[in-house]
Amino acid sequence: MKVAIIGGTGYGAVELLRLLHIHPYAEVKAIISHSNAGNSLTALYPHTDGFVEGTMETFDMEVLKEQVDFAFFAAPPGVSRDLLPELAEAGIRCVDLAGDFRLKDPAVYKEWYKLDAASADLLERAVYGLPELNGEEIAGASFVANPGCYPTATLLGLLPAVHNGLIDPSSIIIDAKSGLSGAGKSLSTVTHYSEINENVKAYKLGAHKHIPEIEQVLAGVGGTQRAVTFSTQLVPMTRGILATIYADLKTDLSEVELLESYENYYHAHPFVRIRSQGEWPATKEVATSNFCDIGLHVDKRTNRLTIVSVIDNLVKGAAGQAIQNMNIMQGWEQTAGLWMLPVYP
Amino acid sequence: MKVAIIGGTGYGAVELLRLLHIHPYAEVKAIISHSNAGNSLTALYPHTDGFVEGTMETFDMEVLKEQVDFAFFAAPPGVSRDLLPELAEAGIRCVDLAGDFRLKDPAVYKEWYKLDAASADLLERAVYGLPELNGEEIAGASFVANPGCYPTATLLGLLPAVHNGLIDPSSIIIDAKSGLSGAGKSLSTVTHYSEINENVKAYKLGAHKHIPEIEQVLAGVGGTQRAVTFSTQLVPMTRGILATIYADLKTDLSEVELLESYENYYHAHPFVRIRSQGEWPATKEVATSNFCDIGLHVDKRTNRLTIVSVIDNLVKGAAGQAIQNMNIMQGWEQTAGLWMLPVYP
Amino acid sequence: MKVAIIGGTGYGAVELLRLLHIHPYAEVKAIISHSNAGNSLTALYPHTDGFVEGTMETFDMEVLKEQVDFAFFAAPPGVSRDLLPELAEAGIRCVDLAGDFRLKDPAVYKEWYKLDAASADLLERAVYGLPELNGEEIAGASFVANPGCYPTATLLGLLPAVHNGLIDPSSIIIDAKSGLSGAGKSLSTVTHYSEINENVKAYKLGAHKHIPEIEQVLAGVGGTQRAVTFSTQLVPMTRGILATIYADLKTDLSEVELLESYENYYHAHPFVRIRSQGEWPATKEVATSNFCDIGLHVDKRTNRLTIVSVIDNLVKGAAGQAIQNMNIMQGWEQTAGLWMLPVYP
Amino acid sequence: MKVAIIGGTGYGAVELLRLLHIHPYAEVKAIISHSNAGNSLTALYPHTDGFVEGTMETFDMEVLKEQVDFAFFAAPPGVSRDLLPELAEAGIRCVDLAGDFRLKDPAVYKEWYKLDAASADLLERAVYGLPELNGEEIAGASFVANPGCYPTATLLGLLPAVHNGLIDPSSIIIDAKSGLSGAGKSLSTVTHYSEINENVKAYKLGAHKHIPEIEQVLAGVGGTQRAVTFSTQLVPMTRGILATIYADLKTDLSEVELLESYENYYHAHPFVRIRSQGEWPATKEVATSNFCDIGLHVDKRTNRLTIVSVIDNLVKGAAGQAIQNMNIMQGWEQTAGLWMLPVYP
Repeated sequence: MKVAIIGGTGYGAVELLRLLHIHPYAEVKAIISHSNAGNSLTALYPHTDGFVEGTMETFDMEVLKEQVDFAFFAAPPGVSRDLLPELAEAGIRCVDLAGDFRLKDPAVYKEWYKLDAASADLLERAVYGLPELNGEEIAGASFVANPGCYPTATLLGLLPAVHNGLIDPSSIIIDAKSGLSGAGKSLSTVTHYSEINENVKAYKLGAHKHIPEIEQVLAGVGGTQRAVTFSTQLVPMTRGILATIYADLKTDLSEVELLESYENYYHAHPFVRIRSQGEWPATKEVATSNFCDIGLHVDKRTNRLTIVSVIDNLVKGAAGQAIQNMNIMQGWEQTAGLWMLPVYP
Repeated sequence: MKVAIIGGTGYGAVELLRLLHIHPYAEVKAIISHSNAGNSLTALYPHTDGFVEGTMETFDMEVLKEQVDFAFFAAPPGVSRDLLPELAEAGIRCVDLAGDFRLKDPAVYKEWYKLDAASADLLERAVYGLPELNGEEIAGASFVANPGCYPTATLLGLLPAVHNGLIDPSSIIIDAKSGLSGAGKSLSTVTHYSEINENVKAYKLGAHKHIPEIEQVLAGVGGTQRAVTFSTQLVPMTRGILATIYADLKTDLSEVELLESYENYYHAHPFVRIRSQGEWPATKEVATSNFCDIGLHVDKRTNRLTIVSVIDNLVKGAAGQAIQNMNIMQGWEQTAGLWMLPVYP
Repeated sequence: MKVAIIGGTGYGAVELLRLLHIHPYAEVKAIISHSNAGNSLTALYPHTDGFVEGTMETFDMEVLKEQVDFAFFAAPPGVSRDLLPELAEAGIRCVDLAGDFRLKDPAVYKEWYKLDAASADLLERAVYGLPELNGEEIAGASFVANPGCYPTATLLGLLPAVHNGLIDPSSIIIDAKSGLSGAGKSLSTVTHYSEINENVKAYKLGAHKHIPEIEQVLAGVGGTQRAVTFSTQLVPMTRGILATIYADLKTDLSEVELLESYENYYHAHPFVRIRSQGEWPATKEVATSNFCDIGLHVDKRTNRLTIVSVIDNLVKGAAGQAIQNMNIMQGWEQTAGLWMLPVYP
Repeated sequence: MKVAIIGGTGYGAVELLRLLHIHPYAEVKAIISHSNAGNSLTALYPHTDGFVEGTMETFDMEVLKEQVDFAFFAAPPGVSRDLLPELAEAGIRCVDLAGDFRLKDPAVYKEWYKLDAASADLLERAVYGLPELNGEEIAGASFVANPGCYPTATLLGLLPAVHNGLIDPSSIIIDAKSGLSGAGKSLSTVTHYSEINENVKAYKLGAHKHIPEIEQVLAGVGGTQRAVTFSTQLVPMTRGILATIYADLKTDLSEVELLESYENYYHAHPFVRIRSQGEWPATKEVATSNFCDIGLHVDKRTNRLTIVSVIDNLVKGAAGQAIQNMNIMQGWEQTAGLWMLPVYP
């Protein structure tokens, strides 16, 4: 199958390229970049030497319709909103790694993204691409909104507890830590090496645009969902998200019972691994892989549940999950091209 | 004033040495090390070349009583419990950087430290050395229990809110991130560079021995205190703790009112700096200094308060605070030898 | 083909496991660990969860002969010396990632490794597994000595210049920088996170056991070879070696001519990539891959050549090259299971 | 004494501020910033909260002449060239941390800095501020050109050997590794965290503007000096330079003799520390301090000397050395405000 990557010069794009290169059924046919059309990707990323032919292209709707069967949008917000619908209409299935089609309510999108939303109708038709939740809808989708990196780690950590009504939905607090690649390739003082090295920094408290995404999905799963408290912190590493999630248990459940409940929920989902009692995952244990590893802790003294959930933000939090979605959309095994050991150490 | 450092080869000891070297009134006269007596500290720490004369000594109670006026214990748990009382009895004022005299209840110490406690009487006489809370008692103390690193960041973040009854004491959740120097100089797999670099790792969830210390102090300040939820995570940097603290507000307070309340509480305390509205501190902004910087966020949607509190774990979380305590015990200005800009970047 | 990994708990072994898992023709059948027999690898390395069945086994010569067709030794020096010969004799082809069969002269091995060497006869039969140099001999070998990590980066950087007699062999100076994974998984003060983070440290100047390996190979290529000056430095990262190599040019060659000479030399060797004039590789551009990237600089003022050569020490410097050797020994394409984009960023 | 910092928002300026704050005789009276006049430094650097009053000012020659007795220029190249002479003329002694007055030959400055040079007369009057070399001239100087960071580490490593004629001046090769703070606060792709973390990167081979500075000084010391080969590499840390320097010994000297020669040369220079035989310094052992630590190795097989020299690029490589120069110019002890233990770990 021939594939295009639209928005070819960010970290999401080069991660797609890396993973698609070893995919058994898909092949990258075009890399589209508005700002770098005519240039070679290798000039920007010497590590790709020998793996990309030709130069990056401008976006041309008609050429693309001829050229490829599938497209990944890895562009900034607003781009897929404008370009994806026509492509999808023409039968080119798409996965959007940006946030343009994640939120169902146009007003909410506008509030958090400060941009006009796609039409309510298009937003309704978009399938939220969390395979462990929406596998069937994804299989039938013409286009999929790939979840954000923080929502992926958070939702996979919460789904079994919320779905089974084990926790008080108004008590959820998410303390997330992310490596710097989540901030992308654009330069800024906060991502300047000397500023963030040897540093942990809280940012966008209560203001991150992944908040409504998390709340929308939890409401869908749990019936009612109150607002969550969500904090983000940058830690000095390149890849990885660790979300520590706190919630009050509704009933008196033991760690063993909770772990069993999580194991059952993810029984058919190969990319979620549950840790044994008394063990919690570290980000490095999933680095460069599509896994989400989860550990639990019950504080008997407060009857509070602590969930530790880790992903590689560029894989399960972006390019890997996008390919998992493509696999499901195409009817391939969802692990195709993704069943690899994490790089360690 | 002549000072001894007892337990001379850990990171706490060399940080004491660094800070005492520039102290206007105190001078290190003896460095005591059980395991390294007879050796030069410079052989272990080449960076001290030119700053220490002679070799490390064994602990000799009688010699010490002659030699010094003040002692810092920077030894593992159990050592100060056995040695400090006699020294204090002889009029040598002491600050203990270990946890042997922090907890008032011997049974609680035994439960969390897995060691026999000092006598209840001695524990009662020990003053908990958080200067922003116990300044007067510290001034009159014969020996002081220096707070743990996590409790320092946590308590300074919580004191104004708990003291003024602004938050529900049963709702407190502390998510703390620490650099690796907090784990000390002893080798372990978890502190092996290739294992923890590019990694964030949760550990000792609900089992860290700083938990009872935090609860004891909060109970003293707030009247009643229920159990707190306390999580610790290692982040790949050497120095620094960032504690993100969550609690439900009892009444409807704005960020401005809360910041004012914090400013008032710490008005006379030079080492606590409160950030402006919408700003939160990063660990690097206090690195190598005795500051604790604090920022607040109120999530109006959940009426929950988020407190971000940062310290350098080896300074305000250990050696710096110990010297601040010494300053107060001696009647000197508490900033003596400590009023320095953080190293940045 | 069924494969054994002998010495199953070091970083070389888990890297073999990662790479062999995606190999099209080879399958790991046994993981041998003296110290951890009976335990699961996943207990030591949670990232392998789902990828290894059963437990690690003790070394049993007879069982192994039945069980596998090929063996990788990833054990400390001395182990392969004792066990490999009988296995190879029985027709099990082997690659040794340790240094036991790299040096031809038993006395030199003893001098640098402080261990007794294998017999001169066995050392003579061992093929030095640098595929870009010894492809034909490797194809026919019953066992191969996989090069050290520093020699791989160094030799690939020097081969074209030495082979073509372009540089004065007595003028070679190698300044090598390595990440910490090269020091392995054993604990030591130097690999303790707080000691080596934010630090660059020279070590084993003139005393590294990779020195005779480099000199032996260069002598073989260049006819005569005088001693090289070789310095090693640890830099705060997990993976990667960058070797900066200096040598006096014998004649007046331009950068363009030298680059052409390098391009020609490596024409048929897919894992060596030569950078354009004025560009030099960085370690991250080959991370997790089997590539060696090389850049050149000619200082016209001194007529000296500077060569910058980078590898991932665990891949081209260990497990990846071992698999490349296996591929050649088995008559498979040498890129089998190894033709992947580096992980970036 | 009242001091101005001109160019107040770079890392050199905040490091001057940190060090001057604890200086016994000097006080910062004005911080001059062209681009940030009217703003508070604390808005840019929250870590300075409580240490700076008022806002940054524009450069006003007349005001400055009234206001201060001494000025540090920490501005980009070209600024001190234009402003320093008039200030110096008015009797305000100056130290220039930029490169505008380091090179004696205007043509050489223009070639390497791509800017017009100050007049030959002014360049001649400028004293090169390496206190271990030019102490007397500095004492009498009206303005001093503070050395570059790389030249400081390199020259201190080479001075005894060159001065005593121990090495062949045409054989000198300098392989320098630097942390990222040396690249300053300006944003660039190469200093973007995700790009340079877990990475070692060679840059500006043979083209660094510190090359003529090194050669000029060595020629002055050694009589004749041929071109040096000088390579620079970025390593993933914030502070520190480690220079590994190679040179052929002219005669057959032992490590002991060489170490003795170095000890003698630096006998009266408190900021240079020579390591014992078989030991080499690491950058962290001088971090945040004004020390330059040096270790030696003689390779008997090649009769080549390897020198390892480390500094903190922002202290001995910039602000610390500038203050050391001020101390000497003012007739104070050169260690005033600088005699501190390095921060470790």
